[in-house]
Amino acid sequence: MYLIGIDVGGMSIKGGIVDKLDGKIIEQYSIPTNAYSKEYSISEDISKVIDYLIVKTGIKFDQILGIGIGQPGSVDSERGIIRYANNLSVENVPVVAELQEKYSVPIYINNDANCAALGEYVFGAGRGYKDIVFITLGTGVGSGIIIDGKLFEGRSSAGAEAGHMVIHVNGEPCSCGRKGCWEAYASASALIRQTKAMMDAHPESLMHKFAQEEGKVSGKTAFRAAKVGDEAAQLVVDTYINYISEGLINMANIFRPDAILIGGGISNEKEYLTKPLQRLMDSTSFGGAFNPKVIVKTASLQNDAGILGAAALIIEE
Amino acid sequence: MYLIGIDVGGMSIKGGIVDKLDGKIIEQYSIPTNAYSKEYSISEDISKVIDYLIVKTGIKFDQILGIGIGQPGSVDSERGIIRYANNLSVENVPVVAELQEKYSVPIYINNDANCAALGEYVFGAGRGYKDIVFITLGTGVGSGIIIDGKLFEGRSSAGAEAGHMVIHVNGEPCSCGRKGCWEAYASASALIRQTKAMMDAHPESLMHKFAQEEGKVSGKTAFRAAKVGDEAAQLVVDTYINYISEGLINMANIFRPDAILIGGGISNEKEYLTKPLQRLMDSTSFGGAFNPKVIVKTASLQNDAGILGAAALIIEE
Repeated sequence: MYLIGIDVGGMSIKGGIVDKLDGKIIEQYSIPTNAYSKEYSISEDISKVIDYLIVKTGIKFDQILGIGIGQPGSVDSERGIIRYANNLSVENVPVVAELQEKYSVPIYINNDANCAALGEYVFGAGRGYKDIVFITLGTGVGSGIIIDGKLFEGRSSAGAEAGHMVIHVNGEPCSCGRKGCWEAYASASALIRQTKAMMDAHPESLMHKFAQEEGKVSGKTAFRAAKVGDEAAQLVVDTYINYISEGLINMANIFRPDAILIGGGISNEKEYLTKPLQRLMDSTSFGGAFNPKVIVKTASLQNDAGILGAAALIIEE
Repeated sequence: MYLIGIDVGGMSIKGGIVDKLDGKIIEQYSIPTNAYSKEYSISEDISKVIDYLIVKTGIKFDQILGIGIGQPGSVDSERGIIRYANNLSVENVPVVAELQEKYSVPIYINNDANCAALGEYVFGAGRGYKDIVFITLGTGVGSGIIIDGKLFEGRSSAGAEAGHMVIHVNGEPCSCGRKGCWEAYASASALIRQTKAMMDAHPESLMHKFAQEEGKVSGKTAFRAAKVGDEAAQLVVDTYINYISEGLINMANIFRPDAILIGGGISNEKEYLTKPLQRLMDSTSFGGAFNPKVIVKTASLQNDAGILGAAALIIEE
């Protein structure tokens, strides 16, 4: 049997047909995301991707267990509605009802970070655990929470916004309107800001050389320079990892899950990131050795996280 | 039918027999808490309280649905073990197994803040809601979380420690070893520290007069002076309420519950506290008006919270 996973993003709508047994994507397709106006329908675009995949693979709908959709922004998963997604200009769109008119298989939609958490739980680094906190370090800081094998979303799917947990009262401004959110310190965007500030103060730093090579300051600049012994870069990396740890340990103290998985662009640093985070977690989380250990791991699905996470919605339901 | 609730504290072990129907405590009794040594048994003390209540009321054990115990510190509720409670010098005590040798009714134990949350849910201000975050503002900041009518404790009951969520990176030292925990800003102890600092800077403040009357600086000093127009006191109160709100809004963004209930000594300020907190919650929590409102309310069980919360464990199970 097969699952269809749809990953709606700011740049493209990607879809894939997934073999339920081994979690392999057997075919995928993507189209650019349009700027949705009132005349334009996001459901029609999703539908184009689905139809392409069905025609291309020749798989019949009686072999498809369902369609899962991962969507940035605020999603009412129970009612199948996209409440809002700033960068897509959609508001209160009943996507599931619209698609259900065309397809008779079960259709689910959820927030993309929730999908990614579920994807790791079903197909990735979260297999074998019951309780997981998934954190994605990208443009923002997203989170997905699995409690006892079920996605925890809060009322009307409006919880699990750990990126908007203040870790520094009156600190850096956040896109959500608060000051000092975890996202404003631990996202890739925050790391770039921290890197630039340190570069300004240290014209001798190797970070300038790496940034020149890359054509810009990126989330990798400080990590690359730190790895070859640049002191200023090491300070950026240590401070950044500490900011990540503060939020991770907060989540451990609140949820005490089996594992916290780190995804998103920054997670490509793998053990260079997770080793110090694990050390800080072990030394600083509440109750110390009296309490069960929380494992810090890199998420494993990477580029497939969007499609597999959306497909995992069908298995969870 | 009746419930027995036992509230173990640093000063006393209180117990009560509760009528399941109306949640009224029909009889209560307390003995001072002993400094437990290896030769001494906390189970024996709990047992004294239970036996007194049974003899005094003449209620037979076939009318008792169970015994619930609320205990400060770290409790493994599944295995019925007190892992540790610093101020009671107990460590890895299998209280439930010990008491079960004597009593054949079901016996449950849980952390006191978890019990208080459950008590409010079953008997108090949380009735009618499904998802609640309960916060107690006392010597520390405790929390209890109800998700879909069930206590959420994290793995091995080691979660729900929201007081040890950092809200100010590298901030005030906390008893848990971290710096900047919510508890270090929003507890009654923190308020007293903040009040004293402001009093030192403002010898003209009415806070001095109120503190003299009370014989000490307390959690009430700043509130009392602010209510009669003292500017320095108003600044203490506003700042303190803001600290409370930062953690509350974090919990709303993570859990998006129906309601957040405030208990503990400071909650006696009632609407003077909850009104500004509600305003900050509405204006600042994630998603604004797009997301369902989180109600901020004062907990209602007050002095009975310990016994009723412990008794509520029996109903939940």
